Amino acid sequence: MRDKHKTAAMLAIGNEILSGRTRDANAWLAAQRLFECGCRLVEIAVVPDAESHIVSSLSRLKDSYDAVITSGGIGPTHDDITMQSVARAFDVALVEDEGTLSAMARRYGRASLNFGRKRMARLPEGAAPIICEKSIAPGAHIGNVYVLAGVPEIFASQLETILDNFGDRPFMRRQLDVALPESSFAKPLEEIQAHFPNVEIGSYPHRCGGRPEGKVCLSSQDAPQLDEAVAAVRAMLERLG
Amino acid sequence: MRDKHKTAAMLAIGNEILSGRTRDANAWLAAQRLFECGCRLVEIAVVPDAESHIVSSLSRLKDSYDAVITSGGIGPTHDDITMQSVARAFDVALVEDEGTLSAMARRYGRASLNFGRKRMARLPEGAAPIICEKSIAPGAHIGNVYVLAGVPEIFASQLETILDNFGDRPFMRRQLDVALPESSFAKPLEEIQAHFPNVEIGSYPHRCGGRPEGKVCLSSQDAPQLDEAVAAVRAMLERLG
Repeated sequence: MRDKHKTAAMLAIGNEILSGRTRDANAWLAAQRLFECGCRLVEIAVVPDAESHIVSSLSRLKDSYDAVITSGGIGPTHDDITMQSVARAFDVALVEDEGTLSAMARRYGRASLNFGRKRMARLPEGAAPIICEKSIAPGAHIGNVYVLAGVPEIFASQLETILDNFGDRPFMRRQLDVALPESSFAKPLEEIQAHFPNVEIGSYPHRCGGRPEGKVCLSSQDAPQLDEAVAAVRAMLERLG
Repeated sequence: MRDKHKTAAMLAIGNEILSGRTRDANAWLAAQRLFECGCRLVEIAVVPDAESHIVSSLSRLKDSYDAVITSGGIGPTHDDITMQSVARAFDVALVEDEGTLSAMARRYGRASLNFGRKRMARLPEGAAPIICEKSIAPGAHIGNVYVLAGVPEIFASQLETILDNFGDRPFMRRQLDVALPESSFAKPLEEIQAHFPNVEIGSYPHRCGGRPEGKVCLSSQDAPQLDEAVAAVRAMLERLG
């Protein structure tokens, strides 16, 4: 059994996100699921449906992190160029996957294997198809890259099939409500953070009718350390409040 | 008057997005508003509250696009390190902004200028403060980089104050409903795209009770070309449907 991925990046591909037409859902889901699995998502990138952008971002990310998950651009239309871009990033050919063609022929009949359907059966050479119940068109796994669909329902289904490769020790999160201005506890919070290097502490203010209000959020893979840090922050806030 | 920015990148800074705690709202808003202004958002990046990540991403993005908008990390707590990272990316010092300190002193009294408040008054040397009605802590404009807050209400308010620098000719979007499988119109849609290089055409399927359903989305800065392309897609779909 090989080691599970401890760090990951997400590469969302699609003009529809960059033009504000569509609010990202896939990176958000991946962030939640990877956290629960204990894999650190270190970077999210969103790039257009343009081969040069996909290739350069993917090349950078796959060399920087244990794994990369991509979403989008694997359908049959002209703007779906993720598979050819992944093939180029790995310097391999794009080949029709026989298993996918057979599955499509069984479902639709061989005569219906038109231009568009055949396009969806192309994978980078050497890639394993990622198959889920929501779509007959597969994703692809090659090297440390997982190529998933953009349609959120299909992305979510494909994501569940690969998560076993990610993380080894779940992250846990605790949150404390705060009704003080951040500036009043910034210094003691910094001191607590310095005492707990294995706990990540963040402060997130939000507005609520003019009074200061927010949350201090703590997360860690180490439950006893997390408990201790939560207790320290709570005691500090009670002292100030 | 200098030229308006025609391309931009968005750099969202914050562990809360990467851990799945918070769904991004700021990049989504920026994408919508830049589209309406006629500035092409070419890349979105989300990075953690870590100086090395912020500096390397910002350096790459500011050299690649006309402008960069950042969000997050400008509060008073230890995880707010955007201003110091921007200063490092521009190789300048971080200095207390006298105008901000004066405004804080007027609002809260000089005795209340504690560690946290003074921290929020620090800007990269040479930066102009970005001031909005929602927060006394400013954003910063230096070179081609605009440093905005992470709290969505403040981000939105600051964004409106800088948008006059972005874009020159609004993008327009038109969408057509489609009840055919993408694979059946992939080829003719590709031909239409080839005829209209100034119109960006995307196909976005979604699931609806098992029947194929989706939208073909067309956008452009050129209204007559957009009208012609919409007519061509509509005629093609009617021919097939």
